[in-house]
Amino acid sequence: MAVSMDDDVPLILTLDESGSNTSAVNELDSEDLPNENGGSCDLVNDMSSPATGDCYSQQRSTRDNWEMKYQEAAIYLQEGENNDKFFTHPKNAKSLAAYLFVHNHLFYLMELTPALLLLLLSLCEAPAVPMFRLGIYIHATLELFALVVVVFELAMKMRWMGFYTYLRHKRTMVKTCVLLVQFVEAIVVLVRQTSHFRITRALRCIFLVDCRYCGAVRRNLRQIFQSLPPFIDILLLLLFFMVIFAILGFYLFSPNHSDPYFNTLENSLVNLFVLLTTSNFPDVMMPSYSRNPWSCVFFIVYLSIELYFIMNLLLAVVLDTFSDIEKRKFKSLLLHKRTAIKHAYSLISEQRSSGISFKHFEGLMRFYKPRMRTREHYLTFKALNQSTTPLLSLKDFYNFYEAVSLKWKAKPNREHWFDDLPRTAFLIFKGINILVKSQRFQYLMYTVVAVNGIWILIETFMLPGGSVFRRDVSWSYIFFLPISGAEVLLKIIGLGPIEYLSSVWNCFDFAVTLFAFLGLLAREFNMSFYFIVVLRLLQLLRIFKLKKRYRNVLDTMSELFPRMASLGLTLLIFYYSFAIVGMEVFSGVVYPNCCNMSTVADAYRWVNHTVGNKTVVEEGYYYLNNFDNILNSFVTLFEFTVVNDWYIIMEGVTSQTSHWSRLYFMIVYSVTKVVMTIIVAFILEAFVFRMNYTRKNQDSEEENGIVLEKIISKEEMEAVIKRYRRNCPASEISELQNVAQIDKDRQISILFQGRRSRTKSDLSMKMYEEEIQEWYEEHSRKEENQQQDVFPSRTPLPASGLRQRSQTII
Amino acid sequence: MAVSMDDDVPLILTLDESGSNTSAVNELDSEDLPNENGGSCDLVNDMSSPATGDCYSQQRSTRDNWEMKYQEAAIYLQEGENNDKFFTHPKNAKSLAAYLFVHNHLFYLMELTPALLLLLLSLCEAPAVPMFRLGIYIHATLELFALVVVVFELAMKMRWMGFYTYLRHKRTMVKTCVLLVQFVEAIVVLVRQTSHFRITRALRCIFLVDCRYCGAVRRNLRQIFQSLPPFIDILLLLLFFMVIFAILGFYLFSPNHSDPYFNTLENSLVNLFVLLTTSNFPDVMMPSYSRNPWSCVFFIVYLSIELYFIMNLLLAVVLDTFSDIEKRKFKSLLLHKRTAIKHAYSLISEQRSSGISFKHFEGLMRFYKPRMRTREHYLTFKALNQSTTPLLSLKDFYNFYEAVSLKWKAKPNREHWFDDLPRTAFLIFKGINILVKSQRFQYLMYTVVAVNGIWILIETFMLPGGSVFRRDVSWSYIFFLPISGAEVLLKIIGLGPIEYLSSVWNCFDFAVTLFAFLGLLAREFNMSFYFIVVLRLLQLLRIFKLKKRYRNVLDTMSELFPRMASLGLTLLIFYYSFAIVGMEVFSGVVYPNCCNMSTVADAYRWVNHTVGNKTVVEEGYYYLNNFDNILNSFVTLFEFTVVNDWYIIMEGVTSQTSHWSRLYFMIVYSVTKVVMTIIVAFILEAFVFRMNYTRKNQDSEEENGIVLEKIISKEEMEAVIKRYRRNCPASEISELQNVAQIDKDRQISILFQGRRSRTKSDLSMKMYEEEIQEWYEEHSRKEENQQQDVFPSRTPLPASGLRQRSQTII
Repeated sequence: MAVSMDDDVPLILTLDESGSNTSAVNELDSEDLPNENGGSCDLVNDMSSPATGDCYSQQRSTRDNWEMKYQEAAIYLQEGENNDKFFTHPKNAKSLAAYLFVHNHLFYLMELTPALLLLLLSLCEAPAVPMFRLGIYIHATLELFALVVVVFELAMKMRWMGFYTYLRHKRTMVKTCVLLVQFVEAIVVLVRQTSHFRITRALRCIFLVDCRYCGAVRRNLRQIFQSLPPFIDILLLLLFFMVIFAILGFYLFSPNHSDPYFNTLENSLVNLFVLLTTSNFPDVMMPSYSRNPWSCVFFIVYLSIELYFIMNLLLAVVLDTFSDIEKRKFKSLLLHKRTAIKHAYSLISEQRSSGISFKHFEGLMRFYKPRMRTREHYLTFKALNQSTTPLLSLKDFYNFYEAVSLKWKAKPNREHWFDDLPRTAFLIFKGINILVKSQRFQYLMYTVVAVNGIWILIETFMLPGGSVFRRDVSWSYIFFLPISGAEVLLKIIGLGPIEYLSSVWNCFDFAVTLFAFLGLLAREFNMSFYFIVVLRLLQLLRIFKLKKRYRNVLDTMSELFPRMASLGLTLLIFYYSFAIVGMEVFSGVVYPNCCNMSTVADAYRWVNHTVGNKTVVEEGYYYLNNFDNILNSFVTLFEFTVVNDWYIIMEGVTSQTSHWSRLYFMIVYSVTKVVMTIIVAFILEAFVFRMNYTRKNQDSEEENGIVLEKIISKEEMEAVIKRYRRNCPASEISELQNVAQIDKDRQISILFQGRRSRTKSDLSMKMYEEEIQEWYEEHSRKEENQQQDVFPSRTPLPASGLRQRSQTII
Repeated sequence: MAVSMDDDVPLILTLDESGSNTSAVNELDSEDLPNENGGSCDLVNDMSSPATGDCYSQQRSTRDNWEMKYQEAAIYLQEGENNDKFFTHPKNAKSLAAYLFVHNHLFYLMELTPALLLLLLSLCEAPAVPMFRLGIYIHATLELFALVVVVFELAMKMRWMGFYTYLRHKRTMVKTCVLLVQFVEAIVVLVRQTSHFRITRALRCIFLVDCRYCGAVRRNLRQIFQSLPPFIDILLLLLFFMVIFAILGFYLFSPNHSDPYFNTLENSLVNLFVLLTTSNFPDVMMPSYSRNPWSCVFFIVYLSIELYFIMNLLLAVVLDTFSDIEKRKFKSLLLHKRTAIKHAYSLISEQRSSGISFKHFEGLMRFYKPRMRTREHYLTFKALNQSTTPLLSLKDFYNFYEAVSLKWKAKPNREHWFDDLPRTAFLIFKGINILVKSQRFQYLMYTVVAVNGIWILIETFMLPGGSVFRRDVSWSYIFFLPISGAEVLLKIIGLGPIEYLSSVWNCFDFAVTLFAFLGLLAREFNMSFYFIVVLRLLQLLRIFKLKKRYRNVLDTMSELFPRMASLGLTLLIFYYSFAIVGMEVFSGVVYPNCCNMSTVADAYRWVNHTVGNKTVVEEGYYYLNNFDNILNSFVTLFEFTVVNDWYIIMEGVTSQTSHWSRLYFMIVYSVTKVVMTIIVAFILEAFVFRMNYTRKNQDSEEENGIVLEKIISKEEMEAVIKRYRRNCPASEISELQNVAQIDKDRQISILFQGRRSRTKSDLSMKMYEEEIQEWYEEHSRKEENQQQDVFPSRTPLPASGLRQRSQTII
């Protein structure tokens, strides 16, 4: 691409009204640009010297009035995008200033940093990871510091929302309470110079959850809490059957003295609970089964009812609630956005006609997306404008969010990076390019990768069992590593480094090959990791994509990934809380040979005895699953999530503490079960939704992403540039290049492509097409009825807020 | 109810044309009954002396012609109901006779018995259950006998279908081949007088699957096979990742000598496969984790990708395929039925007008439902007839299957069983009746049950741990057992035994209380099971029903039950095959202390050592999970289904045989995984479907079942009875009673209620309402185009088949 678009240069431009000579451009432009009162006033240039603009003329109040409207409209649109409720809409100058201060990335980072710091502190506090241990003074001071930052940040929020709204905002209130407790405790720690029993540290994750960047986690948590009622209902059913079976089991099996699982009702209950997780399955049955073979009927009936029926019902109920919630959420988000757009529209639409002119649209966009260029504003405007008139109607404007997320790029004129090289070089590179891009080359490389995989498999298989790690590098690597190296090199040369690295697969390929070479070199230092080249086999996933089902699966996978990551983070937050509690209560409880009196003694054994000349170590290893520091706790909790053999850990800890500890483990199990069920429901819902979507739209199997094309003529381009030149001489060069390119190629116009990836919201829009119309109608009917209630009386924003905003946003 | 309707008396009645004096009845009747040629010919009475009817007059050929048409129409309707393809429609006299022979319950039983016998034989064969062991002569002879019956039955089928259709019918062909093999092997066993390696016994379940009564199992199997392709696709993806991780794991962890899990690539693969089932989870990680804590990342990544992502995708894909298949199946069944109805209609509709008269309808019904009474025929006809004309149009007739499954009952005039008793007794019983039926009494009993439950729970909890089973009956039983006994008694008296036992819950209650009393008595003989009264707590499930979610869940539960049972049977069939293979290969392989050299030695240990004076038995018990006879094999396979610790069984057997045995266990695991996934998908689909249905039809929350009411006037009744009296004097009494009742109550008409339970098909009908119309249109369009192809040229049925049919059906 000829025009290197450095999006990071902030270009905020006002419309230049004196540029009325652009009326030659085209109908749209000429009608649009040179209306309204004149006076070219550059907001950007005098941003550094606030409120001392030298070009403010008599029209200033009118202008300011408009600017203020732009800003408020932009705030509405932001609120729509972020799903902020309108009752926190800034109502006066003070709150506007605070709003602007609170809503920008610097502030968001300032939120995130102390939250992360607080979480990371648990690496260094009392049962610390040995590597990170810090003195009590240091970590308590760090904590206090982080807490002070949080206090500051909350104060700013209160300034924005006002005291009463602040009190009404539940999440913030909870945060404030937790903050207070933490503060007091941190001071107590400093004064006593020793850590006390600080179980409240588990609440620290609230600071993280409240961060703007953790919106997805908050949504997940909300969804989890919304799914709780049906979940708990079914859980009760489960427990009901469990109690009945526990009593029955006690009466049936307690006469058998060799059966330790049912000798008391408590044991009976606990073991049936564990049986629900299948974790102790054949073992729990064995003593009674060896007495009387028919006792297996009890267990089979229990498992059939509880595990195979009710547990699946649990999933079914959660899945059902989940998809219902997803739909409702989609609906409310959609309607919220629509309301926001309506508010914004009513602020900046022309009084005389029904619509938004480009001038006002750009004014709005300057506040809404300050980093966007005028050209992009213009393209977005063109993309929105479906009618022939130069004004945006409300109907056009409803598509605002979809259009604004498009990334515009001029369609490249230069095809390859080597186009400007001398002829001979060009031909060579062109040859490589054609080779690298050919299907045959691709398939050849896949074949090589597959052969490589099979070779490695066989080679590794032929190694003598239990052999020592070999000193010599195997032939497969010697043969295939250079091949993959050559492929990487060819591709880099043929495509150019930028195009090459724009594909994730290529990056992956590059990294793996590089690491393999480094690993080969590192053999000199006795630490080889060249076998990492095995990961290159993952390239074969692309062959899988040839089949439609895999394509669906893998596409869904990549679509699901962000959401999965946020679910993972949610799980980690739960882990954190449980880990803190676990550390406070069970740290140092289990160690080798700790539980010799319990039923799980074997798992904790560590015997070091001598047979002949050799010392043989017999290890049960389970003492490693402890709560001695936060990292260990995380691993232990992960083992709980996987469920298998969790009762060994539970019994080990229980035998060292009291039998009430089981409560902790059962709660951990239940909570992870909830989260895991939600994850399963999420995957199911997303996948089935997508399959339904594909089935419904079989004919239109498009690529991943939405593409829109708009043509801008040379005249329009020049008009835009002229505005650039006058206002921002610094960044004009790239635009000039662009025009030069047009001149050189003797084109009349440039084709711009707007591109964005398709989100689930797009799919939902298409799936619920018919229902959405109903929602809209219902919504507008409701709005008409409750106009006053929904939208509280609003005092117009004062002009004084304006400057400050421009300062803080950039 | 006054009229005790004994449905078991076969009442096949022709219309009595000479009964033209019934023309007084009503318009419908008078127009309908006395048309067409006369001659009262009783099919039923001369059934026992076939083809010698003395009343056959000159109209015989016309009558026979009509009777033949009735019969063929009935066959069409049967084919529609059973989803038999029309190409097996009997085409000539011989095949009609065979068809009639093959399609009745006697024959179905004849199919079922040898199939069950063959399956049960494995209890007695070679590695037999000790109790059932039989000599080789005996069981081989039994087998031969059963096989001969199967041969006969197949011969009859061939007679019906004709040789070529028989060859085309895949299932029957497979059955024939299996039959041949079994025959040869059974003879070989008899000759050699010893059982050889008979792995083909695993195929015996085909005989069961092919039974008419196992239609649901066949459908399940088809659904499983249809879900296989997507399942296998995802399984390949799973294996692909597994191989990559296995190689990586081998390179990473094999340098650690104390790690037995990754020392060879084979071990690495096997252990990662087992890890997929989480069965060896923390253990497999421990050796490497104790060396380097960061090695847990490998396992966490592996489990996240494989277990939490792809395994759930597996479920998602199966669920998606499943609901798609369910819909397609519903569609094809619906259209098949519709075609059948169309064929039947075109056969028996009147030529002169467009419709079926009652006369012809009854003629059809005599063949289609020979056990139905004339009155019920009449009611069904009335239920179908939506128009005012006395003829059924095709549109009316399309509802045939729904109407015919209604069970008609006269609305009872007598409310209680004690209505006829003397006044004093009546009042007492009436009082009890009111008491028993009152809500307060219900809730009082629920409270008693709940208190009972809590009391038992606390009482059992207070017992000292590991206490001996007590000699004395606890107070809770002494207190509550009489109460529940009294409740049962009161209810039986108040409602009358018949009404009491018509509720499943009451039956359950009765049985539990009875057993509890018996158990109390049995204490004298040292075997008490009075604690079974605990099961009475299940009564509390009815309280759960007060909440809507539980109502939905429990209703879905009861709706799912038949299908679940058939899925369970399907699983058992798989178990059977695997059990046979397991017994042939692994029988007698594991025993106490068998595997002392393997990694799972502990689980198989059986040590009997003396500590002080007492002998302490240390048992690993796992030697009980063997393949020594078919019952043991079933339990072992169930343990595989539950998955936990299955690798201990696998490793035990492997250490005694070869490492190829793992293949068997992995296949068993995969197959049970498929079936279990289908079961989960089935529960999910059914539940989500039902919830969607409830959400769609929120306003009309009806009871479970479809009820239709029709009034029959006294005149109509008498006309029907007149026909009864002439034809079947034996069974006339109950009908007379009915009329007597009418006379006594001075009613003009009787209200009849037709009732049937709601099936999933009804729900689907409502859910897909709009689509169904499309399907119909599409279908009729297709049919018009391919009239000839769909419906092969049909020669009319000969009259000779007629008699035979009447004989065999009843």
